[in-house]
Amino acid sequence: MDQAIDRTNSLVCVGLDPDLGRLPAHLAGLEPTEAIVRFNREIIEATSDLVAAYKPNLAFYVSQGLAGIAALLETRALIPAEIPVILDAKVGDIGSSSAAYAQGYFETWAFDAVTANPFLGEDGLAPFFAYPTKGVIVLCKTSNPGSGEWQDVTVGSGGDPLFLALAARASRWAGDYPATIGLVAGATYPEQLARIRAVAPDLPILLPGVGAQAGDTGAAVAAGIDARGRGLLVSSSRAIIYAGSGVDFAARARDAAAKLRDEVNVARGAA
Amino acid sequence: MDQAIDRTNSLVCVGLDPDLGRLPAHLAGLEPTEAIVRFNREIIEATSDLVAAYKPNLAFYVSQGLAGIAALLETRALIPAEIPVILDAKVGDIGSSSAAYAQGYFETWAFDAVTANPFLGEDGLAPFFAYPTKGVIVLCKTSNPGSGEWQDVTVGSGGDPLFLALAARASRWAGDYPATIGLVAGATYPEQLARIRAVAPDLPILLPGVGAQAGDTGAAVAAGIDARGRGLLVSSSRAIIYAGSGVDFAARARDAAAKLRDEVNVARGAA
Repeated sequence: MDQAIDRTNSLVCVGLDPDLGRLPAHLAGLEPTEAIVRFNREIIEATSDLVAAYKPNLAFYVSQGLAGIAALLETRALIPAEIPVILDAKVGDIGSSSAAYAQGYFETWAFDAVTANPFLGEDGLAPFFAYPTKGVIVLCKTSNPGSGEWQDVTVGSGGDPLFLALAARASRWAGDYPATIGLVAGATYPEQLARIRAVAPDLPILLPGVGAQAGDTGAAVAAGIDARGRGLLVSSSRAIIYAGSGVDFAARARDAAAKLRDEVNVARGAA
Repeated sequence: MDQAIDRTNSLVCVGLDPDLGRLPAHLAGLEPTEAIVRFNREIIEATSDLVAAYKPNLAFYVSQGLAGIAALLETRALIPAEIPVILDAKVGDIGSSSAAYAQGYFETWAFDAVTANPFLGEDGLAPFFAYPTKGVIVLCKTSNPGSGEWQDVTVGSGGDPLFLALAARASRWAGDYPATIGLVAGATYPEQLARIRAVAPDLPILLPGVGAQAGDTGAAVAAGIDARGRGLLVSSSRAIIYAGSGVDFAARARDAAAKLRDEVNVARGAA
C-alpha cells in the first residue's frame, strides 16, 4: 500500500460501485456486463495515476447476478498490477467456510485485500490472516448512522466501547499473523477514529464515509493519519464515479479524485 | 418454513457446500460448474422429501470463481419451489450496499432467505427486513470455537452477553418489519441456545453445528425447539453430503438425512 501511496502521492481509494440505474445514458443500452466493464474501465483509465487503491463493493455486482460477477472479475483484470485492489465483501464465517472464501477471493478472484467482519471472532478470520502477501481490513467502527448499536456497547468492566477493544485486538493479530491487517473506521466518526489510531498506531486504516456520506475529510484525516503521515486510505465511491453523468463522466471523475487527493494532502500536511 | 416442516415432518436443513476436492471420483473429471451441479442435483433428488430447507454456503461457490457462481444459480433453479432455499452469505453492509445485496440475493438470484451479520446495526439490515415474502436469519451465537470473543462480551450494566441482547433486539425487529426474521445459534452451545429461546420465544432458529462440528443434537433440539414443537431448522452439511464417496453417494446422503430427521424428531417428541 505504501508503494502506491508514494508513487501517486495520494491516499485516495476509489470505490468502484456501479449502479446500472446511474450509468451515463450512452452506456445504458448495453448488456449489463459490458456496460459495467466499460464504465469501470473509463473510470480506472482516468484515475489510475491519482489513487492508492481501488475498492469494488461486491454488493453492486451481486445485484446484477452472474453478469455482475463476470463484470467484477473483468474489472479486476483491468487494474494495473501496481495498484492494490480491495474487494469490499465484508466477509466473515466459521473457519472452514472462511478458508473457502480466502481461496476464492485471494486466489481464484485474485484480489489483493478484502474487508472482513470480525463478529465470528479470530478463528473465523485466521484463514484470511494466513496469506502473507494479502491484506485483511477488519470492520471496526463503520460509517453508517447506526454503527453504534453493537460497535459502541461498553464491554466488561473496563468501560471501553467494543470497537476500541477490537482495535487493540487487531493490533495484536497484526503481530501474530502473516497478512497485512488493517481496520475500517468511518470518516463520519472522527473522535472515535482518533481513539482507534491511539490504540492501533501502526495499522493501516480504510476510511469510508467522505463524499456522499458527508464526513468531514479534514477532521478525519487529522484523526486517522499515522505518525509517518501515511497508513490511511480515504475511500470515496459515489462522489467520484458519479461526479458527471454525460459522455465526459470519466473526466469529471478524474477532477473529483484529484480534488479529494489534494484536499486530503492539505490535511495530511497540516497534521 | 412451517409448510415445508409439516409436509416432510422434518426439521432438517441440508447444507449444499460442495468442495471439489471431496466430490466422488466419477464426478472429479468434469468441468467445475457441471461437477457441482451434478453433485447437488443428485443430493437434492435423493433428499427433497426429507428436508425442510436447503442452505448453500456462498463460500464454496466463490472458491470456484465464476464457474462456482454459475453452479450456485443453476443449483437454486433445481430445487422444487415448495422447499425454501437459504443462501448462507452472512451478508452485512451499510444501508445503500445492503439494498443492492437484497436486490441481488432476493430478486436476481431468487433465494428465499439469507443469513445476515448484525455487526453494522439495524440500518444495515433494514433493506433485507423490508421484503415481506423473504427470510433474514441473523447471526446470534455462532457454532465456531471462538464465537464468544465478541458475541459473549458482557454489555452495559445489565450483565447480559451481547448475543442475548441481540436475540431480544431481533424479537423486536420481527414485530417492526415485514420479513420473517430468525436467528442463527450453534448446536455446539446448547445452554446459550436455551437462553436465546427464552428471550426470543417466537423466532425461527437455524441451528448449525451438528454433524461435522459435533454438537449434541438431542440437547440442542430440546433447548431450541419452540412451544409448538417447531421454529427450528437443524442444519447439517458435511455429515450428509459426504456420507458416502462412491457412485452411491446420494443414497448415502439420503440415509444420513433420514437418520438426522429421525434423531431430531425423537428429541422433538421428548421436549
